[in-house]
Amino acid sequence: MRLHGYYRSSTSYRLRIALELKGLDYEYVPVNLLASEQKGEAYTGRNPFGTVPLLEAEGRDRAQSMAQIEWLDEAYPDAPRLLPKDVEQRFTARELAYAIATELHAPLNLPVLKYLSNEYGKSQEEIDSWYRHWLGRTLDPVEQRLAQLDTGDFLFDAPGLFETVLLPQVYNARRFAFDFADKPHIERIEAACLALPEFQRAHPDAQPDNPENT
Amino acid sequence: MRLHGYYRSSTSYRLRIALELKGLDYEYVPVNLLASEQKGEAYTGRNPFGTVPLLEAEGRDRAQSMAQIEWLDEAYPDAPRLLPKDVEQRFTARELAYAIATELHAPLNLPVLKYLSNEYGKSQEEIDSWYRHWLGRTLDPVEQRLAQLDTGDFLFDAPGLFETVLLPQVYNARRFAFDFADKPHIERIEAACLALPEFQRAHPDAQPDNPENT
Repeated sequence: MRLHGYYRSSTSYRLRIALELKGLDYEYVPVNLLASEQKGEAYTGRNPFGTVPLLEAEGRDRAQSMAQIEWLDEAYPDAPRLLPKDVEQRFTARELAYAIATELHAPLNLPVLKYLSNEYGKSQEEIDSWYRHWLGRTLDPVEQRLAQLDTGDFLFDAPGLFETVLLPQVYNARRFAFDFADKPHIERIEAACLALPEFQRAHPDAQPDNPENT
Repeated sequence: MRLHGYYRSSTSYRLRIALELKGLDYEYVPVNLLASEQKGEAYTGRNPFGTVPLLEAEGRDRAQSMAQIEWLDEAYPDAPRLLPKDVEQRFTARELAYAIATELHAPLNLPVLKYLSNEYGKSQEEIDSWYRHWLGRTLDPVEQRLAQLDTGDFLFDAPGLFETVLLPQVYNARRFAFDFADKPHIERIEAACLALPEFQRAHPDAQPDNPENT
């Protein structure tokens, strides 16, 4: 299995976590987004969306991180499960994970931020403000749901789909100096995940294409 | 089952299609987004995300349309399936459905459009241009994947998850005068779906909160 990704892309980070939690071996192939490698024909011929990550697995080039993650869980059911078996618990995990994936991902993603800068001439300060605005809009209710559920270190007994999607978003939020003071449930889950070797191996800091590592 | 939604919201429209395709009875409860009903405490107490649709089902208030749809398919496995049983076909459907749900939904959703207008002072013409830009970015590769798959009236034999997510987005795209001339596969699927009574009952034109119907 080969994962084509970028160290700091939140969707690439999601896939690294998912593969680590499931204990599946994979080769990591860096795609330099800043050099627009994902727009080259060699790449878009395999992934017409021109996005990372691209997952090469079981003879097929697969795009779209949430579809990749759901597929991994279905294709390798004997490996640790990202979604529990219980239908109601699956809903609980997906409601929170998809809130982040559908409401937060796109407005905070590089193409939209570039559009704000290039088309609208927005300053970095204005872009930071945009970023934090949308983060709060979705992370506030995520925190509320977690408080209602009275979560501990994880949403359930072990990290799964929700933590896979949450941690990369929290990593990005910290880059934009988002204030987590009123989000103790999210912070507790973050700390518990970052203590695990699976999350440490998946972290942007540990990737070969992180400039800190070259 | 009760579906709290807004006639023209693409995510509400998704849920109406999903419920119709599965043949599940439901009561439709209009939520007036233009009057900000979704921000009132009565509503956010049940759905902290302050979004439509809210699905009241099996004793639980459920937010997030993609989580709701996945749950419907798992909770009612004997009703017609939105996702096929085959793991590879499930991936095919999810890759395309989640491209629309994760890349397109948020930048085109009312809160982001309002932000562009209120915070950035963008004109309707500039907002239309924003809208069409992101539509093309995702619908172009969706069309490419459909061409690779050589699809007919539907992605598979009958409409399912993909068509449930596609049709509301195409409906919105047409409101913004998006040009589908180079998207014959999407247009064929649109026409085949709109000919079905399930899609006709789910359509914004058929909802009681559509001003045309009052």
